[in-house]
Amino acid sequence: MLVIMRKDSSADQCSGVEDAIRRMGFTPLPVPGADRTAICVTGNRDPVDSALLSRLPGVLECIAVTRPYKMVSREVHPQTTVVQVGDVKVGGSEPVIIAGPCSVETEARTIAIAEAVKQAGAKMFRAGAYKPRTSPYSFQGLGEEGLVTLKKVRDQVGLPVVSEVVETETIDLTLEYVDALQIGARNMKNYSLLKKLAKVRKPVLLKRGLAGTFEEWLMVAEYLLSGGNEQVILCERGVRTFSDHSRNTLDLNVVPLVRQVSHLPILVDPSHGVGKRERVRSMCRAAIASGTHGLLVETHTDPSTSYSDADQTIDVESLRGISRDIEILVGLEDLFGHESNPAVA
Amino acid sequence: MLVIMRKDSSADQCSGVEDAIRRMGFTPLPVPGADRTAICVTGNRDPVDSALLSRLPGVLECIAVTRPYKMVSREVHPQTTVVQVGDVKVGGSEPVIIAGPCSVETEARTIAIAEAVKQAGAKMFRAGAYKPRTSPYSFQGLGEEGLVTLKKVRDQVGLPVVSEVVETETIDLTLEYVDALQIGARNMKNYSLLKKLAKVRKPVLLKRGLAGTFEEWLMVAEYLLSGGNEQVILCERGVRTFSDHSRNTLDLNVVPLVRQVSHLPILVDPSHGVGKRERVRSMCRAAIASGTHGLLVETHTDPSTSYSDADQTIDVESLRGISRDIEILVGLEDLFGHESNPAVA
Amino acid sequence: MLVIMRKDSSADQCSGVEDAIRRMGFTPLPVPGADRTAICVTGNRDPVDSALLSRLPGVLECIAVTRPYKMVSREVHPQTTVVQVGDVKVGGSEPVIIAGPCSVETEARTIAIAEAVKQAGAKMFRAGAYKPRTSPYSFQGLGEEGLVTLKKVRDQVGLPVVSEVVETETIDLTLEYVDALQIGARNMKNYSLLKKLAKVRKPVLLKRGLAGTFEEWLMVAEYLLSGGNEQVILCERGVRTFSDHSRNTLDLNVVPLVRQVSHLPILVDPSHGVGKRERVRSMCRAAIASGTHGLLVETHTDPSTSYSDADQTIDVESLRGISRDIEILVGLEDLFGHESNPAVA
Amino acid sequence: MLVIMRKDSSADQCSGVEDAIRRMGFTPLPVPGADRTAICVTGNRDPVDSALLSRLPGVLECIAVTRPYKMVSREVHPQTTVVQVGDVKVGGSEPVIIAGPCSVETEARTIAIAEAVKQAGAKMFRAGAYKPRTSPYSFQGLGEEGLVTLKKVRDQVGLPVVSEVVETETIDLTLEYVDALQIGARNMKNYSLLKKLAKVRKPVLLKRGLAGTFEEWLMVAEYLLSGGNEQVILCERGVRTFSDHSRNTLDLNVVPLVRQVSHLPILVDPSHGVGKRERVRSMCRAAIASGTHGLLVETHTDPSTSYSDADQTIDVESLRGISRDIEILVGLEDLFGHESNPAVA
Repeated sequence: MLVIMRKDSSADQCSGVEDAIRRMGFTPLPVPGADRTAICVTGNRDPVDSALLSRLPGVLECIAVTRPYKMVSREVHPQTTVVQVGDVKVGGSEPVIIAGPCSVETEARTIAIAEAVKQAGAKMFRAGAYKPRTSPYSFQGLGEEGLVTLKKVRDQVGLPVVSEVVETETIDLTLEYVDALQIGARNMKNYSLLKKLAKVRKPVLLKRGLAGTFEEWLMVAEYLLSGGNEQVILCERGVRTFSDHSRNTLDLNVVPLVRQVSHLPILVDPSHGVGKRERVRSMCRAAIASGTHGLLVETHTDPSTSYSDADQTIDVESLRGISRDIEILVGLEDLFGHESNPAVA
Repeated sequence: MLVIMRKDSSADQCSGVEDAIRRMGFTPLPVPGADRTAICVTGNRDPVDSALLSRLPGVLECIAVTRPYKMVSREVHPQTTVVQVGDVKVGGSEPVIIAGPCSVETEARTIAIAEAVKQAGAKMFRAGAYKPRTSPYSFQGLGEEGLVTLKKVRDQVGLPVVSEVVETETIDLTLEYVDALQIGARNMKNYSLLKKLAKVRKPVLLKRGLAGTFEEWLMVAEYLLSGGNEQVILCERGVRTFSDHSRNTLDLNVVPLVRQVSHLPILVDPSHGVGKRERVRSMCRAAIASGTHGLLVETHTDPSTSYSDADQTIDVESLRGISRDIEILVGLEDLFGHESNPAVA
Repeated sequence: MLVIMRKDSSADQCSGVEDAIRRMGFTPLPVPGADRTAICVTGNRDPVDSALLSRLPGVLECIAVTRPYKMVSREVHPQTTVVQVGDVKVGGSEPVIIAGPCSVETEARTIAIAEAVKQAGAKMFRAGAYKPRTSPYSFQGLGEEGLVTLKKVRDQVGLPVVSEVVETETIDLTLEYVDALQIGARNMKNYSLLKKLAKVRKPVLLKRGLAGTFEEWLMVAEYLLSGGNEQVILCERGVRTFSDHSRNTLDLNVVPLVRQVSHLPILVDPSHGVGKRERVRSMCRAAIASGTHGLLVETHTDPSTSYSDADQTIDVESLRGISRDIEILVGLEDLFGHESNPAVA
Repeated sequence: MLVIMRKDSSADQCSGVEDAIRRMGFTPLPVPGADRTAICVTGNRDPVDSALLSRLPGVLECIAVTRPYKMVSREVHPQTTVVQVGDVKVGGSEPVIIAGPCSVETEARTIAIAEAVKQAGAKMFRAGAYKPRTSPYSFQGLGEEGLVTLKKVRDQVGLPVVSEVVETETIDLTLEYVDALQIGARNMKNYSLLKKLAKVRKPVLLKRGLAGTFEEWLMVAEYLLSGGNEQVILCERGVRTFSDHSRNTLDLNVVPLVRQVSHLPILVDPSHGVGKRERVRSMCRAAIASGTHGLLVETHTDPSTSYSDADQTIDVESLRGISRDIEILVGLEDLFGHESNPAVA
């Protein structure tokens, strides 16, 4: 913490700040400048709460220096964490495709889609049994019936399955059926959900919220790790900005940044990031090239009849194209090689 | 729904779209234009899902015409809804101040604050027993102990109390102690919470999310109303934008807009909207002048020692000033007079 | 400048940074922390360029401490600057209304509007002769013919006139006809225009850009002041955010902030800030209550026939209402009283 | 244009709107709906101005249907435009690297950089002689001296050169020295500059503004094309959002969208889009994979001593790596093949 004093602050005011820092158990270190003084807070192990200092007489502002997250940081854990979902490794040397329809549909159709995406290169299956929907009048998901279908996908098709949980009440039920749990963008700051998922023994796929800063997102992951669950996969899916030509603004800049500052694996969901089927493959390519450990792609054998999000769902032929793209893209130098300094340079 | 055809679309493609509209049970009405054709969907009672139409050959885009919300609309309910919390009316002809510390603190201190804010003009008390916090290492609220204290505030000080619920598990418990429940900004799209609060017989104060559009916010209120709870109070508390000089960007434009299109009462929370104590009173004035039905103001007898959000918490003397401001501001013409056409003109 | 070292930085790397700071002519002051070291740069009079330091081995990041603006700061100029336009004072103890149509129209109609807005309480007249338009196919303004009309307004109606300049070539011509020049939002960072307006002997009304941060906006004012023109009036007109229910998001939080950190007067333009006629008066009230020194309001005797921006142009009767509102609002305590600490508290 | 009537609008009000449409020279077509009526405006060749209609009694809102841009649209010009700068083709089947330092530096150093980037695969050289800078106290570029150096680069090194123009006064001078002119992000809506560049016989590289929507950006290109200059290259360089971990938010979603709706070539500038040297190569890869026709990369033989933007400037070795990346990425299917339907599917 650095306390910046006002230009016209008095020596007494500076002493007052130093005393307050000492009362907090830390050591003040004054730094005289050309036209104002700054006072460093030293001796703290954790971020200092600025509240007690920022309102003292003569103080202009307080600047935080220590990063608030610890356990998710690559500084404390230099090797990339590999999260295993079923027999699939996320965070290793191969980008992983997770595919499936937005919602679980009928059993027959869901299994047919799973077979098709597996043939097209997907290593994991994802579909929603519980759907958070903007309108109370929209389809809300099949619930437990959907979970039963997902388990059949796993058993019959042989793909690990991941599905979203939207409330604490259905976590235990969902765990019986799926291999990994997704926290959706709307629930990134649902701390009640996070605290319970921190106690779960299965991997969690954590989507970034529509208004989530990079630091907030990592702090949410910190909730999970500090609560006991280290099997966390981050997932960028676009943020909300003024830019209205796409459903969201896919912020691919986070991919090399996550790989630089955190040891957690990072996925990208171009389906929500773009929102338009015909541009999904281009953004899948971009995501892989930026260094993501995998893709989440809404895929359907007959996209226009999807139960939800039909506009952004691609067909199986396109998914096959994406698999071919990945074969080429993994030829890029050091795409997953530099564990401790992962941004290529 | 209006289906815009591409310039180079063929007559067959137009027929295809018309057939699809008929299969949905609606009536197509083609509108030939100078250089392209549009096809109106008529006969629908509810918003039409564009998924089935937007992907048909020759279609450029689909434009929604019907507004997705119904029960919250002033078109179906011309008079402003007055929500009663204890004996306090929100939405009537007098702006209401709701004040209190960010978090419930010790019983003695909390009651002292409540006495002081009552003297200063507050009509309702608000403090958090359950706190959603960005960092897992921050103070998380006193829980039930805090609720007990809130009930003592109501009984001893005589102010109705409102407090935030952050998970479904504690709704019933919270209902035993408080007069109204708050849905915080982070939980605006926590549909699990919303569906349960729709069944509650007490008023709900619904904060706008950091990335919530106006329409999404009203749709969330629609969840509550369509689920059975008509005692909903909206609350603007700032949104997240590039503008980094304040904690959030307080979007006061919504105040006259809510009053124009919805019958629900609208509050403003300038504490979170600005994030800096010394600018809170100015924004309280602005909010009242824009037509808000009340204010939510974080207030403390000793702000710099607040358990949380000290930077944005004002002292009691400032709250008294805000009460005096309101006495002047209610002199503005038609501030709450034009029920059916509330934006002054 | 504060240089934060990585946790794993070596003593040699710290020495390297200290040497680099000395080579820049400044004095390094190391601040050892619990788990990392920071090195303060001291002895600088101006902001330090981080480029030379941020890339040195072992450096995590550089944090700027000194504010980049000087002449616009209230720290160096404690009294609010009063800018005089004709015989009208902006920044004094009375909020000023500046009104007029978006574009200069025919002479007869423009003069009729000017007479009407004067009767309704406006103290200054504003209309555009040169219009920056999003579409090349839209009306681009009357040019010099418009300027001639503006001068007639001044001579016949007796209101000082202000008009926008969009290019350096027409500055001299415009100066012959008007009392103050406006820099529009689109040109906030048109440095070529700014440098020439810094040499002008007439007041400049500087609108905030759609993506302009508070600091950038003050830095643009700094261009004008450091170039020799101290008659600068700031004007907030809304910024661009995801919030799509209004034309722009009016960021009233800047009003008390400008008054706190700068000595320049601040206006608000609710017409662009809202974009919808029926909500303009509500936001005018809010702006005045927040402490603005005046309003810019697009007004017309027959709004729906305006040459441009008809949707956001109010009629003269509404402007009269705003004048009555101001009579009430100036009753607020210390609305313009606290020059050196202007945010009311 | 579609005029939506209020639910409670009367038959007379509908007739009034129809009459107004006829007075504008167009044909009204009423579309009765379940609970409200819409009236289509037909017979217009250009976008209809909503001003005259939106304020009529009974009207709820007006929805534009016709796209405002024409000449930049792929609908009217199905083949991608190839813009030739010197002997380099932008928009063809090979992605082009444009590199150089942020600012022109000394002649010797600038030529040395140019030689180095040419060896590393760059096909064009870019450096700024006139620099728009946020602070009046920052380095403002070398001006004509810089242009002279750029011409020497072209003559001695053999790379076409591009440089930014920031004011109309220096356009003619700049044209004597360079092969293409850049419009910077800050000047995207500097219409005075745009109108003059529309008359120029050299290619224009048009950067997207920090708050520029996709449609506004294309409308700016429309200014250039409709004014007579068809040699326009678009360039995405990041927009301003709440996301504060990178200098800007690089909006790669526009790349497939530009290729879908416009025939103009599209470049990406990851240097500004990220703002941090160590993440530039990752985003260059992403940009190429998304389908950009080329890259603008700030490169220097000794980045940390750059005159400006040192933090985002890469070294020559990294540029060589990007060239190797492109060799792999052009192996992607149909990267530039589908001229008339360019988003891969």
